[in-house]
Amino acid sequence: MAVIDLSKQIALGIDIGGTNTKFGIVNHRGEILDKGRVKTESATIDEFIEQLYVEIRPMLDKHSKSYQLMGIGVGAPNANYYTGMIDYAPNLKWEGKIPLAGKMTEKFGVPCKITNDANAAALGEMMFGAARGMKDFIMMTLGTGVGSGIVTNGQVIYGHDGFAGELGHTIVKPNGRKHWSTGSEGSLEAYASATGIAITAKKMRAEFPNSMLNNYPEDEINSKTVYECAEAGDPIAIEVFRYTGQKLGEALANFVMFSSPEAILLFGGVIKAGDFILKPAKMHMERNLLPIFRGKVKLVFSELPEADAAILGSSALVWEK
Amino acid sequence: MAVIDLSKQIALGIDIGGTNTKFGIVNHRGEILDKGRVKTESATIDEFIEQLYVEIRPMLDKHSKSYQLMGIGVGAPNANYYTGMIDYAPNLKWEGKIPLAGKMTEKFGVPCKITNDANAAALGEMMFGAARGMKDFIMMTLGTGVGSGIVTNGQVIYGHDGFAGELGHTIVKPNGRKHWSTGSEGSLEAYASATGIAITAKKMRAEFPNSMLNNYPEDEINSKTVYECAEAGDPIAIEVFRYTGQKLGEALANFVMFSSPEAILLFGGVIKAGDFILKPAKMHMERNLLPIFRGKVKLVFSELPEADAAILGSSALVWEK
Repeated sequence: MAVIDLSKQIALGIDIGGTNTKFGIVNHRGEILDKGRVKTESATIDEFIEQLYVEIRPMLDKHSKSYQLMGIGVGAPNANYYTGMIDYAPNLKWEGKIPLAGKMTEKFGVPCKITNDANAAALGEMMFGAARGMKDFIMMTLGTGVGSGIVTNGQVIYGHDGFAGELGHTIVKPNGRKHWSTGSEGSLEAYASATGIAITAKKMRAEFPNSMLNNYPEDEINSKTVYECAEAGDPIAIEVFRYTGQKLGEALANFVMFSSPEAILLFGGVIKAGDFILKPAKMHMERNLLPIFRGKVKLVFSELPEADAAILGSSALVWEK
Repeated sequence: MAVIDLSKQIALGIDIGGTNTKFGIVNHRGEILDKGRVKTESATIDEFIEQLYVEIRPMLDKHSKSYQLMGIGVGAPNANYYTGMIDYAPNLKWEGKIPLAGKMTEKFGVPCKITNDANAAALGEMMFGAARGMKDFIMMTLGTGVGSGIVTNGQVIYGHDGFAGELGHTIVKPNGRKHWSTGSEGSLEAYASATGIAITAKKMRAEFPNSMLNNYPEDEINSKTVYECAEAGDPIAIEVFRYTGQKLGEALANFVMFSSPEAILLFGGVIKAGDFILKPAKMHMERNLLPIFRGKVKLVFSELPEADAAILGSSALVWEK
């Protein structure tokens, strides 16, 4: 009987974004042996896969003497874990349903699993990051949008149709702020994403002419500049993050009462605001929790380097039980 | 090697409520071979278990020639699946942490598993009721309070500490109606429980003196009398249920975007209002969903007889994988 030597196994992790696609060859300990990127601009999925293959095949060949490629994991918007299809992703140019997993397997000759980027990030944290050893946690990615990956009993929740974990679209304020893309009113994403923070900042600076936020042109108001103003002590910029943290915390309380996680992990550009958001988020989460949940749930930042997290997360799909 | 004959196996299901405790001997097909009840009034847990034993032992003896008792399942408020303890249940007179599962095993000589009543109800539906064959669903119990049991990947979600699934306490309206017991503001339970419906009805009838609801004395305003008025065509009574259904539907949309269930099952006294609640609930659920979830989730009533559901659900704990 052959002994399985994990140290000889590698996975290919691919993260498909609207603009760039990143990929890396990852070993079982989460070390990236090689990585690269291409623009996500091919007109057809077949051209895109061919482009990936041309880039990746030489890398794989380089490692093929020492390592065995076990499979491919892909994180992509609207990627369905069950069907292996990307379903009508609004940020990608390929329309309709794209049988990505099947085509990747055909091209590379190994199994391929796909899921959305937030679920992949959750797997990455469970395997290599802050959620190591945890069986129940929620991963929130706070970037341009708000994504989420939910793990219970040690498994990512994919749900009946593969689309579970759209926590950014849950409503935190009925009849609240209209979402720029979905049209829903009062979703978490409308407040707690970088996009939402910019909207909040623009509203608040209009009300307070003395705010430092008024020193920037309209198109430079974003979570980074708001952070600079908050750091410089501008009370309105601080209030922008406090309000954002409150909405986030209220939403997190509801999530805790759903799945009772050990921790909530936060990831993405927005968390650069640090305690400006984390403290109010924690306060409003605790305040809205039923007493039996209070003081139990860790609210922590991701431990994975942002540049590599998507690759690590995607590769973790290969090792998922 | 012994052949396992499921038809010879039985489970003891026990449902501990604030006033009454119901129990039954249940076979693998969900048939109740025998059942009974005692008042939940013993001063200590040991007395209570003794009282149960005196009632149940003769029943078990009667069946012991033909059947083998595989275990005991107990549904009780604040019952912790992991620890086997009841933790500070507000409706029960035994204070502190009660090691119920251990004491039951000691007395009856078989394994005992416990969980809260809503989780037990979800297991009952999965094994014997409307959720047979489903791996992803949410069970909502709409009674005096609002409870929930969540199943994903074919397993009840217990969460990190055993208390997952407190969906009745999620906030549906920030700064909304104050909860009579927890003090939280705007929880689902404050609106969609029988208690919440009575509050809504009392408020609305005060605003509309012509409503039939004003024909009842204050202490007779409950979900039953509101239903009678709605049936008789009173628009205010109908509005009470519509408003309740709206709040329920808005909450359900958030739950769907969390775990993407195949179905949401509704159970409990409140569902006697039928379409008066179900239709607005469905409409507002759909309206608040992200498009990829719309038109997919079944919203259905429980199929288990209300009198036996708690016993069946508790017994299902014994067969749970």
